[in-house]
Amino acid sequence: MDHECLKRRAAAAAVAEIADGMVLGLGTGSTAAFMITLLGERIKTEGLRVRGIPTSERTALAARAAGIPLTDFAQETAIDLAIDGADQITRDGLDLIKGLGGALLREKIVADAARRLVIMADASKLVETLSGIVPVEVVPFGWEATSRKIEALGGAPRLRSAADGVPYRSDGGNLILDCDFGAVPDPAPLDDALRRLVGVVETGFFLGRADLVLLAEETGVRRLARGE
Amino acid sequence: MDHECLKRRAAAAAVAEIADGMVLGLGTGSTAAFMITLLGERIKTEGLRVRGIPTSERTALAARAAGIPLTDFAQETAIDLAIDGADQITRDGLDLIKGLGGALLREKIVADAARRLVIMADASKLVETLSGIVPVEVVPFGWEATSRKIEALGGAPRLRSAADGVPYRSDGGNLILDCDFGAVPDPAPLDDALRRLVGVVETGFFLGRADLVLLAEETGVRRLARGE
Repeated sequence: MDHECLKRRAAAAAVAEIADGMVLGLGTGSTAAFMITLLGERIKTEGLRVRGIPTSERTALAARAAGIPLTDFAQETAIDLAIDGADQITRDGLDLIKGLGGALLREKIVADAARRLVIMADASKLVETLSGIVPVEVVPFGWEATSRKIEALGGAPRLRSAADGVPYRSDGGNLILDCDFGAVPDPAPLDDALRRLVGVVETGFFLGRADLVLLAEETGVRRLARGE
Repeated sequence: MDHECLKRRAAAAAVAEIADGMVLGLGTGSTAAFMITLLGERIKTEGLRVRGIPTSERTALAARAAGIPLTDFAQETAIDLAIDGADQITRDGLDLIKGLGGALLREKIVADAARRLVIMADASKLVETLSGIVPVEVVPFGWEATSRKIEALGGAPRLRSAADGVPYRSDGGNLILDCDFGAVPDPAPLDDALRRLVGVVETGFFLGRADLVLLAEETGVRRLARGE
């Protein structure tokens, strides 16, 4: 079974978690795209009434096309369920690295406001230890100084470029530094140090936030729940 | 002596700290405006060679008009001296509240990159205890949720409006929540809690950062140095 099929399978399991009347956080990325499509189908066939807060302009477009009613933080005081993908997931603790898709700030704001965060992934995303690239969203003004401070924390930051070679801009107009920290067996202190840096808006570490991971494997979907 | 004269006097004392060849951080606000003018005069009369990194578009405009050569973080790896104003300054510790002028994020990035931070103020800014409005710069996406989290920390946030009644936008495109926390005798834990909130970009607390405060009084300029 190829990766696309596994992603779709994980997305289907996540969409099955949605109940009538829910306010949803709608994630961003290739697996989230399947989730949007499948949720649109449930709305059409079952008359499911939900409202979604999208984590990117891209997701907002896809959700509108799929017939999912959109809402925002001006209308809602809480999100019942946020569904998103992840780039890495630890077996113990369900800690995540996210943001390779460039939407980490909005994804984190939505996750933070959600009563429950469900992560969809194919089995290749499961790791023993978080490692490699950690995306860090930074303020454009003085990003060079911020980058040097990240180096002083032991990272190797690289300014993310868009397809046309110019610096990638997040939906919020910020820059992304893709920072290689090697293996990070204890990510909380590093996350804390990064977030304390003036100029850093957010990091791609999502620690202690996921409630349920739906992991698509060849044989089915494995459920990894917090605290189990 | 009125406030404007005192501000000009503090600015003159700050400009006297500038030496030939320095890379400067140029603050924002009414006292900084005097500093820009007086620095321009020193450049013209003494041939002083300096380069400045402005903390706002407003300061950049004024600096260009005053004949101060501008530079940026792509050109400079460090700032020799940052000069800025403040809204409140504690007698002990030289802790500051800044950002009523709306440029707190860039001001903090510049202060953070500077070897030395000199604050100009008139004597009315000196306080025993920081209190009242703390400006907090937040991401526009989900600002309502961020505002509720600030309330949970004991603050009363109010979205800052521009003169035309629409929400004020910082140079970086963010929003400012003016948060009333009452008296804050121990600001470090509150600053830490605010900066940990997802959606908060920066706070107006500048703690343990100022090296020298130049305080203009009726009788002259008082120098308050760190650790004295």
